[in-house]
Amino acid sequence: MSLEIHTEDKPDFADFIGRRDFLGLRREVKNFTPVELADLIEELETEDQVIVFRLLPREDATEVFEYLPLDEQEDLLKAMAQEQVASILNDMSPDDRTLLLDELPASATRQLLTLLTPTERHIAITLLGYPEGSTGRLMTPDYVRVLADWTVQHTLDHIRKHGRDSETLNVIYVVDDKGVLIDDIRIREFLLADPNAHVDDLMDNRFVALKATDDQETAVAVFRREDRTALPVTDTLGVLIGIVTIDDVLDVAEAEATEDIQKIGGMEALDEPYMDVALSQMIRKRAVWLVVLFIGEMLTATAMGFYEEEISRAVVLALFVPLIISSGGNTGSQAATLVIRALALGEVTIRDWWRVMRREVVSGLALGSILGLMGFARIGLWSAFSDVYGEHWFLIGLTVGFSLFGVVLWGTLSGSMMPLLMRRLGFDPATSSAPFVATLVDVTGLLIYFGLAAIILSGTLL
Amino acid sequence: MSLEIHTEDKPDFADFIGRRDFLGLRREVKNFTPVELADLIEELETEDQVIVFRLLPREDATEVFEYLPLDEQEDLLKAMAQEQVASILNDMSPDDRTLLLDELPASATRQLLTLLTPTERHIAITLLGYPEGSTGRLMTPDYVRVLADWTVQHTLDHIRKHGRDSETLNVIYVVDDKGVLIDDIRIREFLLADPNAHVDDLMDNRFVALKATDDQETAVAVFRREDRTALPVTDTLGVLIGIVTIDDVLDVAEAEATEDIQKIGGMEALDEPYMDVALSQMIRKRAVWLVVLFIGEMLTATAMGFYEEEISRAVVLALFVPLIISSGGNTGSQAATLVIRALALGEVTIRDWWRVMRREVVSGLALGSILGLMGFARIGLWSAFSDVYGEHWFLIGLTVGFSLFGVVLWGTLSGSMMPLLMRRLGFDPATSSAPFVATLVDVTGLLIYFGLAAIILSGTLL
Repeated sequence: MSLEIHTEDKPDFADFIGRRDFLGLRREVKNFTPVELADLIEELETEDQVIVFRLLPREDATEVFEYLPLDEQEDLLKAMAQEQVASILNDMSPDDRTLLLDELPASATRQLLTLLTPTERHIAITLLGYPEGSTGRLMTPDYVRVLADWTVQHTLDHIRKHGRDSETLNVIYVVDDKGVLIDDIRIREFLLADPNAHVDDLMDNRFVALKATDDQETAVAVFRREDRTALPVTDTLGVLIGIVTIDDVLDVAEAEATEDIQKIGGMEALDEPYMDVALSQMIRKRAVWLVVLFIGEMLTATAMGFYEEEISRAVVLALFVPLIISSGGNTGSQAATLVIRALALGEVTIRDWWRVMRREVVSGLALGSILGLMGFARIGLWSAFSDVYGEHWFLIGLTVGFSLFGVVLWGTLSGSMMPLLMRRLGFDPATSSAPFVATLVDVTGLLIYFGLAAIILSGTLL
Repeated sequence: MSLEIHTEDKPDFADFIGRRDFLGLRREVKNFTPVELADLIEELETEDQVIVFRLLPREDATEVFEYLPLDEQEDLLKAMAQEQVASILNDMSPDDRTLLLDELPASATRQLLTLLTPTERHIAITLLGYPEGSTGRLMTPDYVRVLADWTVQHTLDHIRKHGRDSETLNVIYVVDDKGVLIDDIRIREFLLADPNAHVDDLMDNRFVALKATDDQETAVAVFRREDRTALPVTDTLGVLIGIVTIDDVLDVAEAEATEDIQKIGGMEALDEPYMDVALSQMIRKRAVWLVVLFIGEMLTATAMGFYEEEISRAVVLALFVPLIISSGGNTGSQAATLVIRALALGEVTIRDWWRVMRREVVSGLALGSILGLMGFARIGLWSAFSDVYGEHWFLIGLTVGFSLFGVVLWGTLSGSMMPLLMRRLGFDPATSSAPFVATLVDVTGLLIYFGLAAIILSGTLL
């Protein structure tokens, strides 16, 4: 990767530690940004990590810590001296800290909470109180809040004094005396305004806010629409209780996409990077769905069993079974994938089911005709040069062609409706993933194929 | 959707226009944020949209325009008076304008460029000069740039004077006299510093920058790592030429995820929301891949043809064909999807192929054993209660069991290696999508199955 932009030669911190050259190490770490330090530290043994952390200036230590993956953070907390743990936890930005505390066993979380100052502990407990996956969990209480009757000068003084920890200074939030959010104003307005003007002279009373109980998908959708770097969060009474910054939203959006992609691929979401997840856990998560699908696919053997008689009379029928079921499976995956993603992005909602259905009926008819004709053509063409399909090639061609048409149409419809049905039933649409639809289509595809064969070939081959 | 937070009762702008109540309309639009206005305007006919735009204050008009989808923007440009087009285009933020100009036919772009002021035209042409998909295309030149020898007071005065259009004021960029980026400093540092201090007193010479020629995926990865809301962009000499803000990066990340998901689903990327894309275009994009896959799957009929003799002698073999090929397909999709996403997120690179292979061999052996045993058990169980599989059920069970084992192992390996191979060959790994791997595995799965059958059943059924 080309990301290590300013790290031409990677130093080996372990080497410094081995030589007990702590002065050299302290000099060395000064050359790197916190992100680079996190990368370098990640490669060390936990004991060496603790040593490097002790050498970092306090504010750097916290920042580097925040950039480490959650599991490394956990290991470090166990290995560090209590004093340093307290210093880092109190300095961490509340949103990152919530993520970490949430990951730990409850007993560890309780113990760590006692290390926090009363203010920070209150913040941490409040944030942990929001349900998992809610916008509240992404909040940070570090923002600048002003009253409408303040002057611009007073506001700027306030920012100088209290803005140090604010995660963004781009936008200043205006609240009334009950703490209810009434406006958001960009900092540039303050910088450009007459210092004696009042905040309410700058107000337009137009703002967009998230609710703490909104789920994070909603937050992602609002951010995508608003092109903002931060948005305020209110409780049900409209009281401003925090802000969410877009960097956390980017992480949520990427994690959600990964989850959906893995579910579409026919497995449980891994929740961890491919290389980091324990092999046993990965196999378990993959096996669960494979077994479910396998049990479903066993029905194909049962279905085929019903037609054993027909197959023995016309073995040629068996030859097209893989072609027909895979065509249904492919169209089904396509349609399901499209609708799953459109649902995730909010481009389509359940109420649109009829419009989706109409589009998919047309698509299914078109795609079914194309593949049906190709199937028929293939059999006709082969039969022109050989007698591999015997004297009844025309009827076989019709059977295969119409079956393809039917299977593709059915695959398109069931693939597109299944995610909507799942959402309607309160399940995650991505779980009605492509292979799941494919399995459904496989079994019904066989019924369509052999059903049509019985009709078309009756009296000749059957 | 719960996004229309402050729009309890949606007004019908068309109604105002029908009554020619332009004063009422002008009052009405004041109640909405630009994003809400964009939503409301989107539902109008183009002629009515033009009327609403004429009533909006100049700065609001541009902002609302920026929130409209690209195709609506195109239609509006055609319908608006030249004067208003010029005003909007000159006011638009350069990154959004680049996106729009790039979408238009070259002749329209050339004509619109003449409406820009010399400064804006220069900016627009420069941005259009970067290759599609490059970070340069996301850049905006609106940021605050200062010199190291300025005082803090001078810097703050400069921001007041020139910060109006800056897309972010969170971070101020320091350049040397050749324009080379030498540091980034948060605005809070300036607000808190002694006004007589110099910029270089605040500098730590640590910064992260993007290159204009980096592809946008790299930009996404850096933003994900750095947790920043904006990053500076330099040319090959290190000269600061713009910044990229994270809101554009969120859009890129979501669009890339959508593209990958659609390719994994076995189709060309739509590039437009599901409901907006023309039906004919959607069918074309889906048909292309379905036809390719169909042609591939035709090989299954050919492969089955080779074994027609065996099938006619042991029809029971045909019954398990769907089960075996779908199991291979499912495991192949799983593995491919996992590796495609891990590649996209940079969790895995080509150089990791051997580590991926090792993990997948273990996974394949485990998953193959599970499904192989289940397949054997199913045949054994059915045979205990019926003679559906005849006297040689044990041998048939062995054939099916070992075939499942082989097909699943092969599906896992080819599914995981295919995306790496595609990346190595310079193709998009997502294109080696799940159904593509499934087709490959289907054909080879048949060879494995009938090959094993020939060995195990020779002398009994065959």
